[in-house]
Amino acid sequence: MPGKSFVQYSPDSPFPIENCPYGVFSTADKGPRPGVAIGDKILDLDALSRTQHWAKAPVPAEVVQKGTLDALAARDPEEWVKFRSFVQETLGPNSPIAGDASLLVNQKDATMHMPITIGDYTDFYASYEHAFNCGVLFRDPKNAIQPNWKHLPVGYHGRASSVVISGTPFHRPVGQILDKPGDKQPIFSPCRKLDYELEMGVIYGGKETKLGERLSPAECRRRTFGLVILNDWSARDIQAWEYVPLGPFLSKNFCTSISPWVVNPAALEPFKTKQYEHEFELLPYLQDKDGFNYDIPLKVEIKPEGEEAFEQVSLSNTQHLYYTFAQMWAHHSCTGCRLRPSDMLGSGTISAPRRDGLGSLLEKSNGGKDPYTLGKRNDMTFLRDGDVVRMSAVAQGDGYCIGFGAVEGQVLPPYEQ
Amino acid sequence: MPGKSFVQYSPDSPFPIENCPYGVFSTADKGPRPGVAIGDKILDLDALSRTQHWAKAPVPAEVVQKGTLDALAARDPEEWVKFRSFVQETLGPNSPIAGDASLLVNQKDATMHMPITIGDYTDFYASYEHAFNCGVLFRDPKNAIQPNWKHLPVGYHGRASSVVISGTPFHRPVGQILDKPGDKQPIFSPCRKLDYELEMGVIYGGKETKLGERLSPAECRRRTFGLVILNDWSARDIQAWEYVPLGPFLSKNFCTSISPWVVNPAALEPFKTKQYEHEFELLPYLQDKDGFNYDIPLKVEIKPEGEEAFEQVSLSNTQHLYYTFAQMWAHHSCTGCRLRPSDMLGSGTISAPRRDGLGSLLEKSNGGKDPYTLGKRNDMTFLRDGDVVRMSAVAQGDGYCIGFGAVEGQVLPPYEQ
Repeated sequence: MPGKSFVQYSPDSPFPIENCPYGVFSTADKGPRPGVAIGDKILDLDALSRTQHWAKAPVPAEVVQKGTLDALAARDPEEWVKFRSFVQETLGPNSPIAGDASLLVNQKDATMHMPITIGDYTDFYASYEHAFNCGVLFRDPKNAIQPNWKHLPVGYHGRASSVVISGTPFHRPVGQILDKPGDKQPIFSPCRKLDYELEMGVIYGGKETKLGERLSPAECRRRTFGLVILNDWSARDIQAWEYVPLGPFLSKNFCTSISPWVVNPAALEPFKTKQYEHEFELLPYLQDKDGFNYDIPLKVEIKPEGEEAFEQVSLSNTQHLYYTFAQMWAHHSCTGCRLRPSDMLGSGTISAPRRDGLGSLLEKSNGGKDPYTLGKRNDMTFLRDGDVVRMSAVAQGDGYCIGFGAVEGQVLPPYEQ
Repeated sequence: MPGKSFVQYSPDSPFPIENCPYGVFSTADKGPRPGVAIGDKILDLDALSRTQHWAKAPVPAEVVQKGTLDALAARDPEEWVKFRSFVQETLGPNSPIAGDASLLVNQKDATMHMPITIGDYTDFYASYEHAFNCGVLFRDPKNAIQPNWKHLPVGYHGRASSVVISGTPFHRPVGQILDKPGDKQPIFSPCRKLDYELEMGVIYGGKETKLGERLSPAECRRRTFGLVILNDWSARDIQAWEYVPLGPFLSKNFCTSISPWVVNPAALEPFKTKQYEHEFELLPYLQDKDGFNYDIPLKVEIKPEGEEAFEQVSLSNTQHLYYTFAQMWAHHSCTGCRLRPSDMLGSGTISAPRRDGLGSLLEKSNGGKDPYTLGKRNDMTFLRDGDVVRMSAVAQGDGYCIGFGAVEGQVLPPYEQ
């Protein structure tokens, strides 16, 4: 049974009262501030915090009178629960603010901004299908999955400075690549194998950990502030040349895009599904007996340069992750690495075990060897200048749905130096 | 000919007027604020900025009225030059503030703090000797140096949240390791191969780059705010198990220590020395024809648990870097990764081409196979609980020296969860 709000929206709105994701928006007359998406409106939390109604709020007004959600992400997880109830009551059918139009903004009149100030960004590699597919392409089927992969969520540090909000275009990266396979001398060239990666981003919140402190998966789940869709743009030719032995570096740090609405784990409760079946028993610090995956369909579309319409290129699902998000955070903390509110992890590309569910073009085009048809192109492999990639996620509930909105980005030609 | 200051110090002080490094300190009566080391004193920049004398300063008072050097690092490099002149005149023999004792603090009465808020931390791998030695130990002599290594400065993203100031103790990390070589099933164990890495840290400053923008080595040199000594503590057994294929992760992110005084490149001008000889011509974007290394001796000492004295374990030099710092930054920017003031890079372990100049215990002990004598121990390989590691650097000038102070850290037993 869908819930009710004084804000009217259709049953297929991604932002019903069951969702209430947080984001940061600005309008022509006022700068970035926190808000809640409801239907096609935004509840202006900053404006709300300056009304009498805030007397019932479980957090101080300052928390939402900022240009980011950092202060909210740093509150205790118990307060998030109370705050979410407060927001849902505020948006409920009998809300005392129902008549106050000044508290609601049309989404179409708003510009979205980075919701948090990411301290550190870490990227995992937690989809078996993706790891296997990439392993075959970068190495060979025998060495595709390394011996450690089924014992720990493999991850590496990413670049926080290059994480941008949906809608931010970026320039095709230029870097060292091999002109032809087997070349010994690299060339400096615009990337020829520009790719996307379909991922989920998970934001840590609550308390900063102490150096040395380890968190259990359950505690990591409690400290999960929210989820976004994440596109970890990748330069495959630069990656292939640079990544041995210390991992991907420039091939990944030129741009990472996230969707603007931070979806609360509470909104995703109805979409819990069982964990991936593990081949080996995990070490106790990683065991997550109450753990789960989410059944959230993930869609990738491309609007090719010069065309009008987006075309679907992949349909995957967050359930195709070998490790839970909580296991990724728990592993991240296990040697004592300090976690701070607003830190973010990426799940790694989520590929379904089907040809039409691959989370990257590297996989879809078999390393560029198998072209496919996209719009008017019958020779599509990697991204071309002007192409726009859109990723979206909608979980279907009982009479309502929980959407993430979309993360979108356009490839520009190389930056004119 | 050494310069003169109204502050008295001996010719072997690491902090003569030719140095004037910046740092952040606090005293019993006042919180963290920027200062300049001079002899065994600190010039309190915050206090100075509240005097008449500041009228001559080339930057607004607010810049030094903070708990970090971030605002100074974000100023234009031309202003750094003027500000340095202003500081040196202020500390000169005829300074109008010479009589004002309230502006000088004894270093022994001060606590040092993180000088900057690191946005992103990147670690390179730029010493040929170290890369070769590690390559032999992690792989074999034939595959020790990968094909890309002599064409680009190999680097990877590190963890900003775990960078700490000298003097901060840390817990021995606990993580996944193989109990015996060849084991298939890992165990969860305190690290048995805890190591240090002798590095230099280089802080970027000036303008934030735009996404896509590439900087030349010369421009990167101009935007170098300062240098510190960096100890990138490493868990070798965790590293060996986890690092394929995406690089070191938990084995490096539990603690990275830096020395507190940020030495200005202007102070290091007299210590410029020629670049490393490159085997292959570098691609044009990396060529640094006016580039140089520095001749700065680097010392590592260990005070073993239960003993009183530090014992020298290594004497290396910053000149043993295959790439210049400017080349590392230029490479870092080449695909368009955004660089922000207060970002920091580590050079990677700097090993000299001599057995007594190795920058890590991994190399010194030949992967733990060749024990050596340290203090009362004749079976020393990796670090034990209670051991203190100190790294220091002093460049010898004509009648004066330029010191970095030291970076020190003690190994504590695993954190009690």
